[in-house]
Order: sequence, then C-alpha cells, then structure tokens
Amino acid sequence: MNTEQRPDIARLVIACPDQHGIVAAVSDLIAELGGNIITLDQYSTGVEGGQFFQRTVFHLPGLAARRTEVEHVIESRLASRFSMQWQLTDASRPKRVALFASKTDHCLLDLLWRHRRGDLPMQIACVISNHPDLEEDVRRFGVEFIHVPVDRDNKAAAEAEHLRLLKDNVDLVVLARYMQILSPDFLEQVRAPVMNIHHSFLPAFVGAGPYQKAKDRGVKLIGATAHYVTEDLDEGPIIEQDVIRVSHADDVAQLTRYGADVERAVLSRAVKWHCEDRVIRHGSTTIVF
Amino acid sequence: MNTEQRPDIARLVIACPDQHGIVAAVSDLIAELGGNIITLDQYSTGVEGGQFFQRTVFHLPGLAARRTEVEHVIESRLASRFSMQWQLTDASRPKRVALFASKTDHCLLDLLWRHRRGDLPMQIACVISNHPDLEEDVRRFGVEFIHVPVDRDNKAAAEAEHLRLLKDNVDLVVLARYMQILSPDFLEQVRAPVMNIHHSFLPAFVGAGPYQKAKDRGVKLIGATAHYVTEDLDEGPIIEQDVIRVSHADDVAQLTRYGADVERAVLSRAVKWHCEDRVIRHGSTTIVF
Amino acid sequence: MNTEQRPDIARLVIACPDQHGIVAAVSDLIAELGGNIITLDQYSTGVEGGQFFQRTVFHLPGLAARRTEVEHVIESRLASRFSMQWQLTDASRPKRVALFASKTDHCLLDLLWRHRRGDLPMQIACVISNHPDLEEDVRRFGVEFIHVPVDRDNKAAAEAEHLRLLKDNVDLVVLARYMQILSPDFLEQVRAPVMNIHHSFLPAFVGAGPYQKAKDRGVKLIGATAHYVTEDLDEGPIIEQDVIRVSHADDVAQLTRYGADVERAVLSRAVKWHCEDRVIRHGSTTIVF
Amino acid sequence: MNTEQRPDIARLVIACPDQHGIVAAVSDLIAELGGNIITLDQYSTGVEGGQFFQRTVFHLPGLAARRTEVEHVIESRLASRFSMQWQLTDASRPKRVALFASKTDHCLLDLLWRHRRGDLPMQIACVISNHPDLEEDVRRFGVEFIHVPVDRDNKAAAEAEHLRLLKDNVDLVVLARYMQILSPDFLEQVRAPVMNIHHSFLPAFVGAGPYQKAKDRGVKLIGATAHYVTEDLDEGPIIEQDVIRVSHADDVAQLTRYGADVERAVLSRAVKWHCEDRVIRHGSTTIVF
Repeated sequence: MNTEQRPDIARLVIACPDQHGIVAAVSDLIAELGGNIITLDQYSTGVEGGQFFQRTVFHLPGLAARRTEVEHVIESRLASRFSMQWQLTDASRPKRVALFASKTDHCLLDLLWRHRRGDLPMQIACVISNHPDLEEDVRRFGVEFIHVPVDRDNKAAAEAEHLRLLKDNVDLVVLARYMQILSPDFLEQVRAPVMNIHHSFLPAFVGAGPYQKAKDRGVKLIGATAHYVTEDLDEGPIIEQDVIRVSHADDVAQLTRYGADVERAVLSRAVKWHCEDRVIRHGSTTIVF
Repeated sequence: MNTEQRPDIARLVIACPDQHGIVAAVSDLIAELGGNIITLDQYSTGVEGGQFFQRTVFHLPGLAARRTEVEHVIESRLASRFSMQWQLTDASRPKRVALFASKTDHCLLDLLWRHRRGDLPMQIACVISNHPDLEEDVRRFGVEFIHVPVDRDNKAAAEAEHLRLLKDNVDLVVLARYMQILSPDFLEQVRAPVMNIHHSFLPAFVGAGPYQKAKDRGVKLIGATAHYVTEDLDEGPIIEQDVIRVSHADDVAQLTRYGADVERAVLSRAVKWHCEDRVIRHGSTTIVF
Repeated sequence: MNTEQRPDIARLVIACPDQHGIVAAVSDLIAELGGNIITLDQYSTGVEGGQFFQRTVFHLPGLAARRTEVEHVIESRLASRFSMQWQLTDASRPKRVALFASKTDHCLLDLLWRHRRGDLPMQIACVISNHPDLEEDVRRFGVEFIHVPVDRDNKAAAEAEHLRLLKDNVDLVVLARYMQILSPDFLEQVRAPVMNIHHSFLPAFVGAGPYQKAKDRGVKLIGATAHYVTEDLDEGPIIEQDVIRVSHADDVAQLTRYGADVERAVLSRAVKWHCEDRVIRHGSTTIVF
Repeated sequence: MNTEQRPDIARLVIACPDQHGIVAAVSDLIAELGGNIITLDQYSTGVEGGQFFQRTVFHLPGLAARRTEVEHVIESRLASRFSMQWQLTDASRPKRVALFASKTDHCLLDLLWRHRRGDLPMQIACVISNHPDLEEDVRRFGVEFIHVPVDRDNKAAAEAEHLRLLKDNVDLVVLARYMQILSPDFLEQVRAPVMNIHHSFLPAFVGAGPYQKAKDRGVKLIGATAHYVTEDLDEGPIIEQDVIRVSHADDVAQLTRYGADVERAVLSRAVKWHCEDRVIRHGSTTIVF
C-alpha cells in the first residue's frame, strides 16, 4: 500500500476478451518501457469466450513526464490488438472525492478520520449535505462543507447545484448515508462513479427501514453493502459487504447501533479499494483485486 | 452442556404475557420442590404489553419418579396465574429425531458424525431419503435408512408413508438438504417441529438455485439459514444463520463447496440448540437462549 | 439496553459459593420489595464447590429514594446467608470514567464519538495524556484535557498528580493506548478498576511491538485484547478480544492500521460492558454477562 | 479451481531476489512455449533487496509430453539469469499424501470425506496411526490403514518403519492430530514436507493441553493453527489459522468440541492450498497465494 503512494508508481487496469498472451504482452511492454512490476492481479471469467481483467502496479522512473508517451504506447501496442479497455493512473495523484451526507455522522466521520490519518489515498473535494447538522464536524477536519437543501419542490435545482459543484471536478462521489435518491439524469451527467452504503446485507431488505425489516424477519446476522449506484435502486454492482451477529434480544435501536459499525467499516474499505483502482465493474457485479 | 446430560436435570421453558413476579414465582416453586437452578435465561419483548420467555435448567433429585407431581404443581401454581404456556423436559431423555436427506451428504454425515461423538443430545430414529444413494453411509453409523421414493405421481402416498413412520414416534424432523417440498397437510399432521437448512442467507435468494443467484448478483458473502418449516416456503422462523466470505474468482461450484461448510455448521448448531430446548418460536421469529 | 437507562432501574451483581436457592432468594427479595426483574444472568463454575455469579436488572419504583433501605435488606437478608459479595447500582447514574491516552488517537476518538452519540452509558470525567497532541481533538467533544508529562525523572510526581485527579472521583480508568506503565503503587491507590487495550491477541505477543512480532512469526490473524490492569504486565483478566485476517502481503504498517480497527472495537465493547456492570472479575479471568 | 484440474495445466512456482523484469521474462517464456496464463500471483518482500515470489498457472497443450523440454527451458532461460528456485507441477497429477492420526477422528475424517467428494486435489497414499481405533473408519473410505505402534522403547524402530513406508513414496505428510513428536532425524530423512495442526492460536499456548491453558487464561476466542513441522516444536511456518468465539460458560470439554471444528476447517484449507502449490515457505513464515 505504502509502496503505491510513492512517486513513479503507475497502475494499469485493463479489461478485454480473454485470449492468449495478454499477460506476456503487458509485462513485456512494461519491461520495455523500463518499468518494474510490483503487483499484478488478473482474473478471467472463463478460458473460452470469457472476459479478462488485469491490474498491474509498476514502478516507472519519470512517470509523470512520460505519461503521454506511455499512454500512446499502450493504446497503439495493446489496446487495439486485444480490443482492450484500459486506464492508467499515477498512484501519487489521489482521486478527488466528494462526500454526500445527511444527518447521520458515523460513515462520514469515519471517512474523514481515516483520511486524516493517511489511510485513504484520496483528496476530499468537499462534503455536500441536504442538512446543516454536520457542518461543524466537517469543518474541524479542514474540509469544505456545502449545504444544499433538498425538498420535494427544489430537487431538480438541488441536483443542478450538485452538478455545478461536481462536474469535471471529482473522480468519485460517495454517498455516506445520504438520504436522498439521485435521479437517473444526475447519474448520467455527473460523469464520475457514485458509491453508496446500504444498511443491509443486499439483496435482503432492499429499500427503506432495513433494520426494522431485519427485526421483523428475525435474522441472526445483520449487514451492510457498499455498491455503485445505478438507476435501479439498491441493484448496483456490489463492492463490499460484511455482517455482524445479533440476537433476539436486540431491538431495532440496537440493530441500528451495531449496523453503524458495519456500515462505516464496509464503506471505508470500498472507498479505499476504489481509490486504489482495485475495483472493476463487470455488468452487475465487480471484480475486486 | 455436560451438566445437562446428567440424571435429575429438568428444563422448564415458559412463555406468557410479561408481568411482575414471574422469575420469583418460578424460582420459588423450584426451591420449594427441592430443586436447584443451574441456568436461567429470560427475555421480554417489552416491559408493558410484552411477551415473556424463560428457560430454566434445574437439578431435582428423583425427577423421573416425581415428574407427574412436578407437572401438576407447575400447572396449578404457575400456568393459570400467569396465563403461561410451558414445557418440562427431562434432560436425560434425548429427543427422538428423524433426518430427511436426498443425494447430498454433507449435512447428513455431519449430523451423524457429531451424534456419534456425543455432541448432539438426541436419538436418531431413522434417516428417510427419496434416493438410495446414502444408504451405505448411514448404515455404517448404525442408523436405520428408509428409502421412500417420491415422484410426481406418488407424492401423497410417500407422505402417508412418512407420517406412518413418524407420527407419535419422533420429537423433531430435520431436513438435511432434503430436496422435496413438504405439503401443508403433512406439516399439520406430523405433530413434530420440522427444521430445514436453506442454502442461502435468507431472506436473500429464496427458492431454488441460491448459489447461482448469489453469483449473478455478485455478493461478497454467502450463507446458510436453519429455520422451522411452515406452509410459506423459506419464510419460517429463523433459528441460526452464518456466512462465509467469497470473491469474484469463485464460480458457482466453488460457492457450493464453501456453502456446504456453512450449511453443515449452521444446521448442526440449530439441531443442538433445539434438542437442548433453547429455541422458542415467537410468531415468525425465534428466541434462542 | 435502552431499558436500562430509564430511571428506577437497578442492577444487582452478586458472587458467592454456589448453593441451593440463591436465584429464588434473590428474586423473592426483589418481588417482596415491589421490583420486577427485567433480565437475569447467572453462571456457576460448578455445582459442587463452585462459585456462583448473578447479574439481575430490575425495575424498582422510587429506587433513588429507597436505595439505603434496599441495600440494608440485601445485606441483612442475602449477603450473610450466602456469604455473598454484592454491588447494587442505579442504572440511571452513569459511571464516571477517566481516559488515558498518549499520541495515538484511534481508541480515544472512538470512545469519545460513541459517547457523544449515546452508545456508552458513562460520564467522561477527563482525558489525561502524557503528550499534548490530542488536546484539540478532545476539547471539541467538550471534554476536559489534562496534560501530565511523564518522563524518567518525574514518574512518581506524575502518578501523584494522576491520583490527585482521580481518587474518589472516578469509577473506572481506561488506558486508550496510553504508552506508560502504571506502578503497582498507583494501581493500589487509585481505588478504581483500570482497563487497558493491548494491541495483540493475548497471550500471544506480550510486551512492546506486537505487530512487528506478529509479522516476524507470520501469523494469519492479528488481534487486540481489552483487560483489567494488574501488577503483572499483560497478565490481567481478559474482558474482550477480537481478531482480523491478514496476509503475507501486509507489512507492519498495514498490520498496525488493521489492528487499530480491532483495538477500537474491542475497547469500546469492553468499556460498554463494564459500564453496564456486565463484567465480573474471577481470579485471573472474567465473567461477562 | 476446477480449471486447474484439467489436463495440460501447469503450475510454476518461483522464488528469487527481487529485480527488474521477472514477470515479463516468465510470461514471455510461457507465451513463447505456446502457453496461456490462467492465474498469476506474485509478491515481493521489498523492492530493493527483497525476495520475489510468483505462482503462475498456465495452460500448455501437450504438457505431459513436453515436460522435460519445458523444465530445460526454465532452467536455462530463467533460473540462472534470476538466481531462481523453481518448481513446475502438472496440475492433473495430484500430490501423494500420507495422513498420520492417533485416536481423535475429526481432522482425519474431514480430510477423508473432503477427498471423497472431490474437494482436495490429492491422492491418499495411506493412513498411519499409532493406535488401531480408527482403522474401520479409514477402510470405509477405501484407504489403506497402517498401524505402527509407538512407545517409549520402540520409537526409533517405529520411525524407521514410517520412513520405509514414506520415503520416495509421498509428496506430503499431514499430521491430523497425531499425538507423537517426530524426531529431527525423521524430519530430515523423510524428504517431504510435514504439516501439523496445532489446537491453539499459535504462538499462544504452545505445547500440550492448550484448551486447558486457554480456559485458565480466560481468553474469549480459541483457535487452531496449521503449520509446517520443524525441529522446533510449534515454531514452524504457519500456513493457516482461525478462531471461534467462546465464553466464560464454556468448560474445557466444550472448548475442545468447539476447537475441533476450527481444527478440521483450518487443516483442510492448509492441505488444499499446499496441494495446489499455493504455499511457499519463506524462512519462518509462509507466502500463501
């Protein structure tokens, strides 16, 4: 991890139809450029007719200055040959992230605190909230807090304001228990992935009030799910999940308290992995290297 | 645990509307009878208007001989006063259990093996299967194996045979990956609780093929659920659940293998707890002491 | 939990040689006083010659005003008869807790944050630190921060200052990654239990540098342990432990980061349970109800 | 997993000082031979002066017939250039494994059962035991059971018999709760790795009676550890560990029962990973890909 935050560390993430020689071609090219592979993960959904995914982290002296050259070589030598989708990132340049919250503080504060202690390789662009409650908490971390009220009548205007703040300004939007549904229009225009933390072990208990539903159903474990947001509510690709054991003696308030611990842990892992380019979307699922 | 398998150990399980003085009345009566409380667990769904549950394990010299007397005293002194449902069991008399299986062996063998080593306080009445495949495995444990084929045309006859074998003969029926749906009629007539192991973390992935569904949805944990069987498929009160971490790299066959370990662990815990009178049904949920 | 924070809720914790009729005598007395038992947990180390422990939570109208009377009755009617050690607490009066910290913030901030959101039934008397680094963080929670520098030459003076601040003022001292060893003299004089979080799965890796030791030994799980402090370093009764999975690829810095999450979770549970009178010391171990 | 059991699948495991171009050289060579990489894992203990490890699974048509050629090319083109230790295995040829047991059945039966259902890619050469108790259980799986009694006086003769049975005949020896200590002499001569399951979360509770020690120390989790056996008892490289939560109410017999579940799960994972060439020894630790 630390290694990846030094200068001259590149991450190349690729996806293409599985075929012979991809690993060799990629590692060859990196060696030819003078790079040294630090870690390499790959996965294929099947040897024949499958989809191939690879994340390669490599040290390349002078990366920042040579970036255009490297991208050109990847495009001309690999991308066309293998019908490859690819992304090259400079590990020393953290992703810019906007955090959305409402009134609940546990996920937001945990992300801010982990970021402050250097555990999350990101830069926090701002916190946007439809409520003013958490402003002081956020400012204490030296992060800009923007209050954009949302109600039934101004939803479109609020999203326009969101887009003005975010578009071409952030690499990721994280909904840290933001209690508003984003419109398909917003999702299309924001041009950055949007991640959400859902307070249940999806696909169980979709929609609102999952802890009450969990109590009613009498489950013995409750959980949380970090996923990318799509137009289909609670149906987006799952990045990370976890659960905690509960008992008949725990009421909904207690489930909510236990759940908060799972939510903040799950969301922080998902954000970290995304910011390290470990998560690749594949249809309605994810590859997490 | 061991303590409870000695002679003269009684278990009293009660349920009644919550009200003042229940614990005192029960423990008083036990003291008056000359008994000594070993463990006592209680739970109330709410102080006012709630339901109260208690499991009391106590040592009572001469229990077997005094049983009618004790039951009479409980009925006359406690049951009417507190509108109480209650059950008294002699811990030295293990429950008689019938195991149902089909072709899959992991849950069945694990129960047989745990029983052989003395970990499950039950007596196995027989194993009933709609397939002959596991006969030899079962007989090796000294347990009777009864093959009752089931097909579209003989389902009623098969269930009649089941009832003939089970009625007034067993205290519990355990479906150890039995791949047939029991009719409401059977459930009503069998006069013993029926427990099932479902190969998913309910209420996620109800119905058939849960591991395929889990793969398609891209969950990061898979699980299993032991529950009492009701007329509503996969909706009965949950007794125990657990999960195991999986990754994008695990195919359905691998999920099935991992899941088998969770299934057998969850089912064996549920069976053990039931046989120790730790599980109380409460509407669509359970209390597990 | 919530229930226990209402007025008129008492907790009676007892320990005595196991013998007939304790549960009945206690519940009888509570019923006689007009109380209603909410939860009751008990444990015996053995039916014959064992030690018996019980925690009883009960509702008693007018508890605060009747406290002296109740204590008198317990002493005269129960304590002498059963050679009982006992403690009665009013659940509405949270314990006063002093937190000790050094430079590391994760355990301290987690306790402060959980306390702010109402999850920890305690009152924070103050934070005492041998370093000034965390002062601002602590004050933001409205908690007094007291800097008591400790070095080789002033250790006795520092502990005298600690005692002046704590004696007869707090019910519990929590070492939230406080990096100084307390003297036997301090432990004897402080007259309050002292709890510590050790950053390993004790008894593995006692002493300093546990994450380095864990790396060197190549363990596949790392953990943390909350325990009461005794004169024997890292040997006090364990209250709570947990672990997290790691791999060969995690360096010591990464183990330390993972470990921090386990440490703060384990310590917060231990503090919560202690403040709810759930933890009873028994020789070098604990009973946790 | 399944993929790796088809014909023409090779596994190449290498270890060498970390340096530029290893991944490229290996993948190049595989491509040149006409192979296709299926999975590739690598790890370096440090970019400068570190040790590099890689496991590469690749499809190579005609592997069995071309094996000598492939080994020659690896030796001449890779091994000398990178000062590499390496091993090439044909995934379709399962490792030959000898299982050692005494009287306790849970680890042994679990391995036999998992093997029968096709979950463990190995061939069981025989079961060797110093007690006859488990003979019938073993034979039922169609596996040869060899009783080699061991007592104080015949230990050398017993080990000579072990060596006669094992030498040049097996690829792995698994001690499935074998209750005898193997001599350094045996370990040196057997010329196959020896794996043991220790019934504690090492390095806690080394030596005999770990569950009693765990009870005495009052730990809240107990565990098990699979490790390679070295001359230093309980000090060999750890392959896998896991834990389970226990409470003050569990006596040593109950800890032993809970522990048995952890032991068999941990050992079966370690055996599986070893047989898939996923485990590389590195000093006193392991890399597990």
